[in-house]
Amino acid sequence: MELWFTEKQTSGVGITCKVNRTLHHERTPFQTLDVIETEEFGRMLVLDGMVQTTERDEFVYHEMIVHVAMQTHPDPRRVAVIGGGDGGAVREVLKYPHVEEVHLIEIDERVVEASRAYFPELSSALSDPRAKCLYADGIEHVKNSPGAYDVILIDSTEPVGPAIGLFEKDFYESVFNSLTEQGVMVAQTESPFFNGDLIKRAFGAVRSIYPISRLYLASIPTYPSGLWSFSLGSKSVDPLDVRPRLDGIKTRYYTAGVHKAAFELPAFVRELVG
Amino acid sequence: MELWFTEKQTSGVGITCKVNRTLHHERTPFQTLDVIETEEFGRMLVLDGMVQTTERDEFVYHEMIVHVAMQTHPDPRRVAVIGGGDGGAVREVLKYPHVEEVHLIEIDERVVEASRAYFPELSSALSDPRAKCLYADGIEHVKNSPGAYDVILIDSTEPVGPAIGLFEKDFYESVFNSLTEQGVMVAQTESPFFNGDLIKRAFGAVRSIYPISRLYLASIPTYPSGLWSFSLGSKSVDPLDVRPRLDGIKTRYYTAGVHKAAFELPAFVRELVG
Repeated sequence: MELWFTEKQTSGVGITCKVNRTLHHERTPFQTLDVIETEEFGRMLVLDGMVQTTERDEFVYHEMIVHVAMQTHPDPRRVAVIGGGDGGAVREVLKYPHVEEVHLIEIDERVVEASRAYFPELSSALSDPRAKCLYADGIEHVKNSPGAYDVILIDSTEPVGPAIGLFEKDFYESVFNSLTEQGVMVAQTESPFFNGDLIKRAFGAVRSIYPISRLYLASIPTYPSGLWSFSLGSKSVDPLDVRPRLDGIKTRYYTAGVHKAAFELPAFVRELVG
Repeated sequence: MELWFTEKQTSGVGITCKVNRTLHHERTPFQTLDVIETEEFGRMLVLDGMVQTTERDEFVYHEMIVHVAMQTHPDPRRVAVIGGGDGGAVREVLKYPHVEEVHLIEIDERVVEASRAYFPELSSALSDPRAKCLYADGIEHVKNSPGAYDVILIDSTEPVGPAIGLFEKDFYESVFNSLTEQGVMVAQTESPFFNGDLIKRAFGAVRSIYPISRLYLASIPTYPSGLWSFSLGSKSVDPLDVRPRLDGIKTRYYTAGVHKAAFELPAFVRELVG
């Protein structure tokens, strides 16, 4: 028997993956959580039927949500990751030796536990003494943390279920207040091919709040359309003005050249952000 | 009843698309040919079960295989498209008023006929008096056309079936000889995520023949992994040294900024091309 997992990414298109075995299934208080082992992408974390991350292509998403902001802030020492319970973003943040503390604010503790059990390469950084897991609502947390972080990364699920508020203007305002003087935020904002309206709304909200705002892109095979957007808001430094310095940090997607190229939007994406 | 078309893009992953209706099916002398109307991507051309082009996302592939080369050559007047029977590449080439002649060398006349019947937006340019369709083997044609073209675009299907020779070093050498003094060629060379070995081999062959060789990328949702590579060989001009001028040519993906950004390879892709 062949087992295939299919995620309908829109009402009319899906990705289908051959499954070697199913490793874990549960209903958490917030969502359904599955871990499967796929032939093409290795282990895959699936929440509410949607692919969150896979062993094979996670490096793109995690490097691109983290390094652009970390290189834009002149000296990021305190970092928050909202969502991101798999630990991949925390791992990338902790590649910077000058980081003093990273808070993972994940509403669903079970995601972190499943990652610890099945994705050691993603979750191992959560054992770093500089990492602290807070099982809380990200929206409430940033509201109650004025001026607390140099960088805030919004590593959310799709804008359905628990993550819906993480795409709203009110939230981006709280994030602004939770950032220090030269603070930088990045939010994942879905696919330009399939979610143009969401990008307009989410990026529009970021632009209305932050002195500097930029949309950038990365190629992620297991995400809808394979092309993904990130909305960056910055209080003082333009990401296009920085010269990224990796200083020995190893990456597989992000480079100094990719940092700049990711902001060069195809014409149809440029139209979305006016 | 819901009808879904699934292409297994590798042995372990596929794309699946909801089908409103099937419009055409035939076995040509070279391959099976289907035209279906999908919910997400509009009409879709499928050869031997593999997605070739769709109404909704064809602009990315056709703009990116054409404009990078057309902007790199200082004065392209004679152009050949090998394969590309849908007509999309010819349409983009003919956006340049100084082009005098474009030859479409397509082995399978039935692809052109199906495109004329079902994809008028792609095939209409084939009626331009500057366009000439030659139903012939591209490999033989370039062998017998020394110094004939300023730009040659290898718009092939996957490296199985009729297209297999279009990824070989012998062919790229014939293409070199078929180009004029400042000639530029571009070949589609598959996905960096799934076809790394093919890219190494095909790009390596291009590099061994052309004074200037570059790999570049574009995001195409209906192609495997969503990230696609193109191998460019140039006799005298480096594509990174040109300042693209669109002079009123309308595009939806390609821009002067994208021209440069497309060559900024993610670290894992840079490794493929050494």
